[in-house]
Amino acid sequence: MELCEIMQMIDRSLFATLGYTAPDGTVQLRRVFCVWHRGLGSHLISTNTGSSHVQHLLQNGAASLYFSDDAAFCGLCLSGKAVIHQTGAYKTLLWNDGDEKYYPLGVQDPDYSVIEFIAEQGSFYRFDGKGTLSAAALSAFDAGREYENGYAKHCAEQD
Amino acid sequence: MELCEIMQMIDRSLFATLGYTAPDGTVQLRRVFCVWHRGLGSHLISTNTGSSHVQHLLQNGAASLYFSDDAAFCGLCLSGKAVIHQTGAYKTLLWNDGDEKYYPLGVQDPDYSVIEFIAEQGSFYRFDGKGTLSAAALSAFDAGREYENGYAKHCAEQD
Repeated sequence: MELCEIMQMIDRSLFATLGYTAPDGTVQLRRVFCVWHRGLGSHLISTNTGSSHVQHLLQNGAASLYFSDDAAFCGLCLSGKAVIHQTGAYKTLLWNDGDEKYYPLGVQDPDYSVIEFIAEQGSFYRFDGKGTLSAAALSAFDAGREYENGYAKHCAEQD
Repeated sequence: MELCEIMQMIDRSLFATLGYTAPDGTVQLRRVFCVWHRGLGSHLISTNTGSSHVQHLLQNGAASLYFSDDAAFCGLCLSGKAVIHQTGAYKTLLWNDGDEKYYPLGVQDPDYSVIEFIAEQGSFYRFDGKGTLSAAALSAFDAGREYENGYAKHCAEQD
């Protein structure tokens, strides 16, 4: 599986699964809307500051993020850390018209946060084999990239 | 969200996401084919004994299993334990014609295992709210149930 194929799988995903360890020691999983990516290794997720996963990740940011395409039998498990942005440019970047219905105070609503997931390593799986992504491989692939809406890019390419 | 609605979501799923902690401390996520269920709390997954997740779960069986329906914006996170069955009736139950291409030695192939996930608690999420499932609630709902292929049942009900 080529790295560009993994990037295409990420770009066509609307959702990913976020995993982390809660204070009670259980692994917790959440399905999250995730379309903003900086290459393979960095991903942005907008969410409620008050949600349990944000509150848990503020205590322990170690996390994993999984992208998959069930129909193509392929998946990517990234492990790394989650950084919670309660202010800053990422909140503006991910804001959409109409989000006031979730965050009545607008972009600066303190209940609106952005989770930035930053991978340190990864493993990928497909019907035809599996492989690993080292920190060096992630850095090399992601060098010079900026955050972009991968799903919008994917849809534009389909037109 | 009623418990029967959660059961329907599980039954119409072909896949779930399994989460656990690897020996290196990272949370690992795997997309797994999962259609055999005993109510809300117990689920069977056939897999290769040699896969990294089976090997890791043999060391530490604490795990979580997540079912979701992205289109319906609902999800269920179960936490509990994974038991690896390398022999026994579950291997026969989950065996399908043609599985010899994955396990050349047949049902008794030592590389063919069944993961039994047994939930101790759960949380569910939907656009209209969230809730928790206690061990008592799971036991009450699942009492008297046997393992069945939920996806086959779901498809039969659609006919």
